[in-house]
Amino acid sequence: MSHDQTHKAPAPTPQDHSQKGEGDAQSMWGGRFGAGPSAIMQEINSSIGVDKRLYREDIAGSKAHASMLAANGILTEADRDAIHKGLDQVQAEIEAGRMVWDDVLEDIHMHVESRLRQLIGDAGARLHTARSRNDQVATDFRLWTRAALDRMDAGLKALLTALVTQADKYADAVMPGFTHLQTAQPVTLGHHLMAYAEMLGRDRARLADCRARMNESPLGAAALAGTSFPIDRHMTAASLGFDRPMANSLDAVSARDFALEMLADLAIAGVHLSRLADEIVLWATAPFGFLKLSDAFSTGSSIMPQKRNPDAAELVRAKVGRMAGAFTGLLIVMKGLPLAYSKDMQEDKERVFKAVDDFELSLAAMTGMIDDLKPNLAAMKAAAGGGFSTATDIADWCVRVLNMPFRDAHHVTGTIVKIAEEKGITLDQLPLADMQKVDPRIDASIFDVLSVDASVSSRMSFGGTSPARVREAVAAFREKLQ
Amino acid sequence: MSHDQTHKAPAPTPQDHSQKGEGDAQSMWGGRFGAGPSAIMQEINSSIGVDKRLYREDIAGSKAHASMLAANGILTEADRDAIHKGLDQVQAEIEAGRMVWDDVLEDIHMHVESRLRQLIGDAGARLHTARSRNDQVATDFRLWTRAALDRMDAGLKALLTALVTQADKYADAVMPGFTHLQTAQPVTLGHHLMAYAEMLGRDRARLADCRARMNESPLGAAALAGTSFPIDRHMTAASLGFDRPMANSLDAVSARDFALEMLADLAIAGVHLSRLADEIVLWATAPFGFLKLSDAFSTGSSIMPQKRNPDAAELVRAKVGRMAGAFTGLLIVMKGLPLAYSKDMQEDKERVFKAVDDFELSLAAMTGMIDDLKPNLAAMKAAAGGGFSTATDIADWCVRVLNMPFRDAHHVTGTIVKIAEEKGITLDQLPLADMQKVDPRIDASIFDVLSVDASVSSRMSFGGTSPARVREAVAAFREKLQ
Amino acid sequence: MSHDQTHKAPAPTPQDHSQKGEGDAQSMWGGRFGAGPSAIMQEINSSIGVDKRLYREDIAGSKAHASMLAANGILTEADRDAIHKGLDQVQAEIEAGRMVWDDVLEDIHMHVESRLRQLIGDAGARLHTARSRNDQVATDFRLWTRAALDRMDAGLKALLTALVTQADKYADAVMPGFTHLQTAQPVTLGHHLMAYAEMLGRDRARLADCRARMNESPLGAAALAGTSFPIDRHMTAASLGFDRPMANSLDAVSARDFALEMLADLAIAGVHLSRLADEIVLWATAPFGFLKLSDAFSTGSSIMPQKRNPDAAELVRAKVGRMAGAFTGLLIVMKGLPLAYSKDMQEDKERVFKAVDDFELSLAAMTGMIDDLKPNLAAMKAAAGGGFSTATDIADWCVRVLNMPFRDAHHVTGTIVKIAEEKGITLDQLPLADMQKVDPRIDASIFDVLSVDASVSSRMSFGGTSPARVREAVAAFREKLQ
Amino acid sequence: MSHDQTHKAPAPTPQDHSQKGEGDAQSMWGGRFGAGPSAIMQEINSSIGVDKRLYREDIAGSKAHASMLAANGILTEADRDAIHKGLDQVQAEIEAGRMVWDDVLEDIHMHVESRLRQLIGDAGARLHTARSRNDQVATDFRLWTRAALDRMDAGLKALLTALVTQADKYADAVMPGFTHLQTAQPVTLGHHLMAYAEMLGRDRARLADCRARMNESPLGAAALAGTSFPIDRHMTAASLGFDRPMANSLDAVSARDFALEMLADLAIAGVHLSRLADEIVLWATAPFGFLKLSDAFSTGSSIMPQKRNPDAAELVRAKVGRMAGAFTGLLIVMKGLPLAYSKDMQEDKERVFKAVDDFELSLAAMTGMIDDLKPNLAAMKAAAGGGFSTATDIADWCVRVLNMPFRDAHHVTGTIVKIAEEKGITLDQLPLADMQKVDPRIDASIFDVLSVDASVSSRMSFGGTSPARVREAVAAFREKLQ
Repeated sequence: MSHDQTHKAPAPTPQDHSQKGEGDAQSMWGGRFGAGPSAIMQEINSSIGVDKRLYREDIAGSKAHASMLAANGILTEADRDAIHKGLDQVQAEIEAGRMVWDDVLEDIHMHVESRLRQLIGDAGARLHTARSRNDQVATDFRLWTRAALDRMDAGLKALLTALVTQADKYADAVMPGFTHLQTAQPVTLGHHLMAYAEMLGRDRARLADCRARMNESPLGAAALAGTSFPIDRHMTAASLGFDRPMANSLDAVSARDFALEMLADLAIAGVHLSRLADEIVLWATAPFGFLKLSDAFSTGSSIMPQKRNPDAAELVRAKVGRMAGAFTGLLIVMKGLPLAYSKDMQEDKERVFKAVDDFELSLAAMTGMIDDLKPNLAAMKAAAGGGFSTATDIADWCVRVLNMPFRDAHHVTGTIVKIAEEKGITLDQLPLADMQKVDPRIDASIFDVLSVDASVSSRMSFGGTSPARVREAVAAFREKLQ
Repeated sequence: MSHDQTHKAPAPTPQDHSQKGEGDAQSMWGGRFGAGPSAIMQEINSSIGVDKRLYREDIAGSKAHASMLAANGILTEADRDAIHKGLDQVQAEIEAGRMVWDDVLEDIHMHVESRLRQLIGDAGARLHTARSRNDQVATDFRLWTRAALDRMDAGLKALLTALVTQADKYADAVMPGFTHLQTAQPVTLGHHLMAYAEMLGRDRARLADCRARMNESPLGAAALAGTSFPIDRHMTAASLGFDRPMANSLDAVSARDFALEMLADLAIAGVHLSRLADEIVLWATAPFGFLKLSDAFSTGSSIMPQKRNPDAAELVRAKVGRMAGAFTGLLIVMKGLPLAYSKDMQEDKERVFKAVDDFELSLAAMTGMIDDLKPNLAAMKAAAGGGFSTATDIADWCVRVLNMPFRDAHHVTGTIVKIAEEKGITLDQLPLADMQKVDPRIDASIFDVLSVDASVSSRMSFGGTSPARVREAVAAFREKLQ
Repeated sequence: MSHDQTHKAPAPTPQDHSQKGEGDAQSMWGGRFGAGPSAIMQEINSSIGVDKRLYREDIAGSKAHASMLAANGILTEADRDAIHKGLDQVQAEIEAGRMVWDDVLEDIHMHVESRLRQLIGDAGARLHTARSRNDQVATDFRLWTRAALDRMDAGLKALLTALVTQADKYADAVMPGFTHLQTAQPVTLGHHLMAYAEMLGRDRARLADCRARMNESPLGAAALAGTSFPIDRHMTAASLGFDRPMANSLDAVSARDFALEMLADLAIAGVHLSRLADEIVLWATAPFGFLKLSDAFSTGSSIMPQKRNPDAAELVRAKVGRMAGAFTGLLIVMKGLPLAYSKDMQEDKERVFKAVDDFELSLAAMTGMIDDLKPNLAAMKAAAGGGFSTATDIADWCVRVLNMPFRDAHHVTGTIVKIAEEKGITLDQLPLADMQKVDPRIDASIFDVLSVDASVSSRMSFGGTSPARVREAVAAFREKLQ
Repeated sequence: MSHDQTHKAPAPTPQDHSQKGEGDAQSMWGGRFGAGPSAIMQEINSSIGVDKRLYREDIAGSKAHASMLAANGILTEADRDAIHKGLDQVQAEIEAGRMVWDDVLEDIHMHVESRLRQLIGDAGARLHTARSRNDQVATDFRLWTRAALDRMDAGLKALLTALVTQADKYADAVMPGFTHLQTAQPVTLGHHLMAYAEMLGRDRARLADCRARMNESPLGAAALAGTSFPIDRHMTAASLGFDRPMANSLDAVSARDFALEMLADLAIAGVHLSRLADEIVLWATAPFGFLKLSDAFSTGSSIMPQKRNPDAAELVRAKVGRMAGAFTGLLIVMKGLPLAYSKDMQEDKERVFKAVDDFELSLAAMTGMIDDLKPNLAAMKAAAGGGFSTATDIADWCVRVLNMPFRDAHHVTGTIVKIAEEKGITLDQLPLADMQKVDPRIDASIFDVLSVDASVSSRMSFGGTSPARVREAVAAFREKLQ
């Protein structure tokens, strides 16, 4: 149990030492841990530098707990009121920057309780009845995570809105569709952007599933076994917005799968953001020239005024490393740990906080970049026409009009493209006669499928790239964003 | 596009080389890739060694596609029937072990189609109309993954049933509850097992969410842009058991988040299995002696007949490395890939297959171990009474009966335990007079809370370890398993 | 100890089941593990499907052990000779494909010993004196790993030779140097290729360090504690090419850091290969057009004859996922394992084998791609001149010739570039008068630094991109490759 | 190039926002990024919160650069002196806490240079001649990493000294040797500790290899291509303690393999620490009772005075997650990045700093725990005698004395142990007659091998557990620690 620890003398915090003596191995061993073992122990044991971010959740949890204790006769109403008032004051002090953080008090829970007892005395000493630091920290961390999930949901919605808006605007803007980064078939920019809307829409759904699953209250599990006090866990659960209390007290204090699930979801979403960011970097290169970065999300150069470095896109691309590293790291921490609470689990919060910070920032930056998108439509369209990108349309025409088996049509098309390539012209410049030499049944109606616009418009299958389909997809997605 | 590749001369497969020439660096460069660049290219490019596991899915997908083409007038009914019959024959040949696997044909899709064309000629050449290898492979892989999810759901259900059955049986079997692996408070074995039921129940729910999200059909997305043929993607989706067609063709061929999500879910579940496995290893040690491993899931020793090595538990504990490594590996593959299909994605299947194989095996082994559980109840109970494990019960008694503030009760208890420790006796052996020296208000009713059975029984809060609560939890969980 | 396990009835192997019943969850539970617990146990426990690749190492280790036993009077010379002859025969049988692999015999060690005893009787039963499966498997795995390190060293040397050869050839071929994938300053292709030679040279050195560190013999550590037989571990170490015996028997059987180190080295090298592969994919795009992929390492298209998909480069780019996933996976396996041998460690070999296979294949493919490099020098040079890439040269000229502070020169240059940009001309087309309006001290000698060739040639600092420096670097690197 | 960025208006930093508005998704989007895109861009782009730890390295690098410029006539001696004096003042200001950190100045390099120009004017503006932020940051980061490697080397040496000292002290203290965590054969505590000395000794060697490989100077690579100024890179390399300048300027600014290598080494060492930490947790449990944790490295309990939670060991066990997560994260960042510098790389430093901090702290805590080791030798010895742990000694006796084939001796031993087990006695309590019933050749001399002390003493093979061998190993290791 962590609620019963004795404390040691104060010692330098990790932040302190980082500025001195690093260059000198001797001084570290002589200095950083100069106070001896207790300094080392305190440094490795203290978590206040990280978990003070939980202060609001800790106070909200304590208020709910006090109310429940009073409602069930475990605490007097007077004590409850004193506790509520005292906690409000502690929160005010923290928000005003007046709390004195001290490694001796180890964590946010001890800071709040200790200050509360200074303020209100005995009543404060009754707050911890039927509770332990183990269920308290689990409750606080779930509350924080839930709020983070809500913020990220809003962030994803904002990004999705930006994507759908631009997809609508560019529903018929032709660009090359790539496979292997080679020009394959023409698509529209709107269709391309909607692919990301689909991916990020699933990411949002994953986080929503995570939220629904994790929204259970550990409070009342106490140290690990539950308590003999006649508490009402359903009441605290409800007052903290949880759907229900967790069903097993050992599980309540030792589960961290909710954090792992969120980190995995963020890592997967991070992959999607990295793909989009990589395309922004690529499209902004001189050879591609598909888009001009906005001033807001690039860094310019005083020496090369035309230059725009896609720093924001590069950083978003890199951030997936944080989310995936956090998942791997926490998974390693949890691997093979026997029940119930072990101190190893204290390593859960910092990586979750950092991953969430970086994800929110990535969403905000990507939303800004999409909002500011300035595509060079002419360059995109020109590139779309390269590489005989409508060759597949010829093959499809042969199947559809001439009833050729697809594999044969494939062969005929290859021969036609070869002729065009040898002549150095595009497919729509190739004389009909040349095509008829390959197959005499070909007639002039084939030219209907040879332009990139015709190609794009013909892809009318559900989910295809024709502007009409893209606009339908935009409309359907907007429904989901209401 | 992958459907249009030309093929190279045959070359040794990876499996072949592994048995020869490895000890000799020269011979590898002279031998393994002796046929030159084309041999290297074929070895790195071929996936048939891995993806032949998809043969049933590939054939099912092709049959659905042919039926849809016929229903929409793109294929004659006669061709459709020939294709169906031919595909049935191909499947029969594969299952009879008569298919000749050949690296020249690269993958399962080419093997099936090539054999089909041998068998039925022209009709076979019409099958690939309005389809590409890109949407075909995505469809096959989703079908396989969905079936795997269903098998793993059944496997988890079996394990959960085993856990709940044993939890019911041992609902009042007292054992030590640990924090920091130090004896903290008594709990029951049933309660401990139900903690794992909770964890694995969430794992099952995660996989169910994954299944619901991924059950969309890529078929008809064609190479990347959709198709100009009047196909009915809703029809193929329905006939393959998908809930709907995917809404964006670029997304359909380039998304692999469904595989990442499943791997993350398996890694998290693997953590839970590793924790349970670690406890089995621990409990089976001589010092703990909490359980005797069954013959079936341990390896014995001809030299030390009493010895039982917990090999199965150790291997289950280790398998989480596979699932987590697979997630990390695929995430690295997908990071920063521009749309749409890139060949990098071919690296998706082997790690998914292996992770699923290992997860299924882990579930089966763990189910067997739980079914065969032979706890040493006497040893568990004896250990539960050690370490003054009911000290918290004294503190709670002081709060409840004497109305002491919790933090003061904590202090009183510490003093009492110190006396018992000095006398070398347990708390329930300590004379009342000794306790009254610490606080004169203590009376004989305190002995009601000093035994491990009393302690366990008193933890009546929702989710607590009292046998009554555990039996309620068992009953509630059984409802969910119906 | 693993050498004393009893065996169970045969059961389907993992390979077997993968082809049947997967689509049907019921059939798996009814079928795959139909024989009950023993089938599950055998499947999870058996490693012969993986570790048969160690047959040569196992036989070499046994021969060395037998020779040492005889030299120290623990075995007769006649027994030693019988063992050697028998082992030669076993090896011949395996290489001729005549060994019957059987899950009942679990692993390669039992297969070899069991067959040996069939062939030579009692003498075979004496071979395992003063040895255990624990030191035996550690020895075999180190021997295999060492051979793999030697093959990979040869593979890296071949790739380095290819890079250096091409760097020499293109030492003065100008191309754009990128930062943020934006054109920054001109460099040469030779210089760019030599950057990869540096990276991969360090990778080779890392693997050499790993080899030097891991080349110690576990043989003679026995199960975990050493042995009471008067063995000579230095003799077996020497005869197997190890530098020395490992100094601690517990460490000898439980260390896997040599495998982790190799996997980390491969993952880092895999990053380098992924960067080069990504550039090949990028340079082969239509917009960049910097190179044409060779037929051997691309896949063509029958429908678009000009198309070349960079499949080999994409696969090399993806393979880093394997190496990194293997490292993460094995690290998770080893985390927190108490000494000495635990069965978890059996999960070490498959991922090492696969990572090595993929790394060797990646090296071979990359070597082929570099050998076949067909750069489009004109396209590279044209791109190098874009983006006012010699702006920095103007600033440097101002500092050098006019003694301007660098930050001021920076500002002057920005103004000049802005004029050129407004006029839509390049820097070397800008009239001197325009420059003199910005700073009257500028004279015609500034034109000496405005061409890309001049820029490149001027970068004469050690390690810089001037052709002379690149040729020196090539020469120096060739020395190291001797 | 990063040295030429323009700057945006100030905005809230990540640290600021974490304390307000998190619970409210609306307020974040309305508040945190209220200043609009430029606030987001600045937050994602700024690195000063992380890289200010590099201030000493940045100043040292600038001083070396200025000296070299002056020595080569690029800077006057007066300017050099002004720069040196100014930089000393900047360092003094930072160390006195008087530097004003401002996100507008992005990073430590701009902060130092900007303050320098305020202090000394024009001369400060000349410092950046023939240098770029790209080679500057690479130089600073290598200097920091090298110092960290030196500190960690000292830390490892301290831990190794502690281990060797205790191994010497307990060279003949008998304890059970485990395989599968089952008692296998007796070993000594000294031998067990020396196994960790071997592992951590290799970790130290790995870090030494990393240091040797990474100690090359990027300074003078400039932005990416080198410079046209007549700089002397060998001079700056030497004055900063580097072994040589890096040989390729593109590599110099874009390589991060030195950081990856160090992180991999730390992760592997972290695995070793996690194994030792896990054993400390295990041995400190009530059932094992092998050791008593010192007050300094455990947390006590006011309620259960006898309780000692092994918090420090648990935290050390968990820290491997940080090191491994950092490796995975940085590897993902670097995967597939084209040359040369990309902004993604800015994500390198924070994870390296954190991993080093945690590793140093883990070493210090583990050193303290080993120094304070209080083993319960009686409990260890009693456990060593359980489980018929000398059964192998009987088998070896039969081989040695009776010349039985090992596999037969194995069988004989199994029968003897079975008899002892049935009688419920230990092997050394079994009457000779019982043994002779199994094999009549057995005589009384067999009792010489049946005690745990005799067993341990007999393991005289090199690297074995006999006290004599352990003392030799200790002596040899001490040599290496000089």
